[in-house]
Amino acid sequence: MAEELVFYSNPMSRGRIARWMLEEVSAPYRIEWLTFDGSMKSPEFLAINPMGKVPTIRHGETVVTEAAAICAYLADAFPEAGLAPPVEKRGDYYRWLFFAAGPLEMAVSLKAFGIEVPRERERSIGCGSYGAVMDSLSLAVTRQPYITGESFTAADVYVGAHISWGLQFGSLEPRPEFKAYWDRLKERPASKRATALDDEEMHRQLQAAKG
Amino acid sequence: MAEELVFYSNPMSRGRIARWMLEEVSAPYRIEWLTFDGSMKSPEFLAINPMGKVPTIRHGETVVTEAAAICAYLADAFPEAGLAPPVEKRGDYYRWLFFAAGPLEMAVSLKAFGIEVPRERERSIGCGSYGAVMDSLSLAVTRQPYITGESFTAADVYVGAHISWGLQFGSLEPRPEFKAYWDRLKERPASKRATALDDEEMHRQLQAAKG
Repeated sequence: MAEELVFYSNPMSRGRIARWMLEEVSAPYRIEWLTFDGSMKSPEFLAINPMGKVPTIRHGETVVTEAAAICAYLADAFPEAGLAPPVEKRGDYYRWLFFAAGPLEMAVSLKAFGIEVPRERERSIGCGSYGAVMDSLSLAVTRQPYITGESFTAADVYVGAHISWGLQFGSLEPRPEFKAYWDRLKERPASKRATALDDEEMHRQLQAAKG
Repeated sequence: MAEELVFYSNPMSRGRIARWMLEEVSAPYRIEWLTFDGSMKSPEFLAINPMGKVPTIRHGETVVTEAAAICAYLADAFPEAGLAPPVEKRGDYYRWLFFAAGPLEMAVSLKAFGIEVPRERERSIGCGSYGAVMDSLSLAVTRQPYITGESFTAADVYVGAHISWGLQFGSLEPRPEFKAYWDRLKERPASKRATALDDEEMHRQLQAAKG
């Protein structure tokens, strides 16, 4: 596919997850930096993504939003990168992608809000208890070296970014297995390149804001 | 794949989403009914799914949890059902699967808790505002007859189940486009069969509870 690949992002956002994935697939892409309360809420961008959020990508006529969806889409659209597992590994792949995008994201957000899920609500709320979410995440990263087995996939980009972020900002319990998993990922050239590029833009924006 | 397919569920749970998908793929499966505070929290089941939640499926050695992941996995594992789109449609497919599993699920849960996302938090919380989530869902179901175009896929099972549930229980705004979309799905034989089978089991359990 030689269609244009456009990446809408902000260096202080979940766009960093998509940036890592874009660097993993090594396809050329063009960046449009958006501001949170400005261009992200413009009529032009809301027509692409009514959530007014980044990351968003456009690949030819295809628009993809949600960081996990961007990881899964790019893995399938650029099979030469080898980041989409074969069907017999897709159970683990989808399980942990959706686990991180759903219960993990929700449990961490509720904790950030200081909201305890009442015991009687744990049944009906998708994320259940924070403790169960942490135990599940431990299972995800200890069963096998990577999420789907011996090979790194797009699910590791997404789950790994959650773990790196959560350890850095204290929203995850600092379990040794989380750190050990992140140690297996953090030296990937694409991850380091993505971080360096986003840090550079972040500093440029912060300098510009200072005048 | 002729491996055994086991479905762990409860008729009063999100298991109904997976049941619909199982009926769509028409593969034979065996059901294990679990109780919320009993067998769902047993050591045997927690070893399979530390969240202690249904739906969960086991297909041979592969365990899949999270209703959206089960839909995506079964679509790929049973390609003859024609419910997994080709790669050029996978942008929409993943976008709306992850949208429903993440921001939609979270926004509806927060509303059920009576929690308003403060304006300054909308930037950092994945689901943003309830209004933006409703507008995005409207886009998903009006752009094309089905989520990825002219053909029904596993993404329609998952998004459709959210919409059906949300209209029934009042957790979604009753927008005409939501109803129109559900009207396109509700007569599917697999959906009707899944509902009838789960209703039957629900009534059996309620009768048994009454003694």
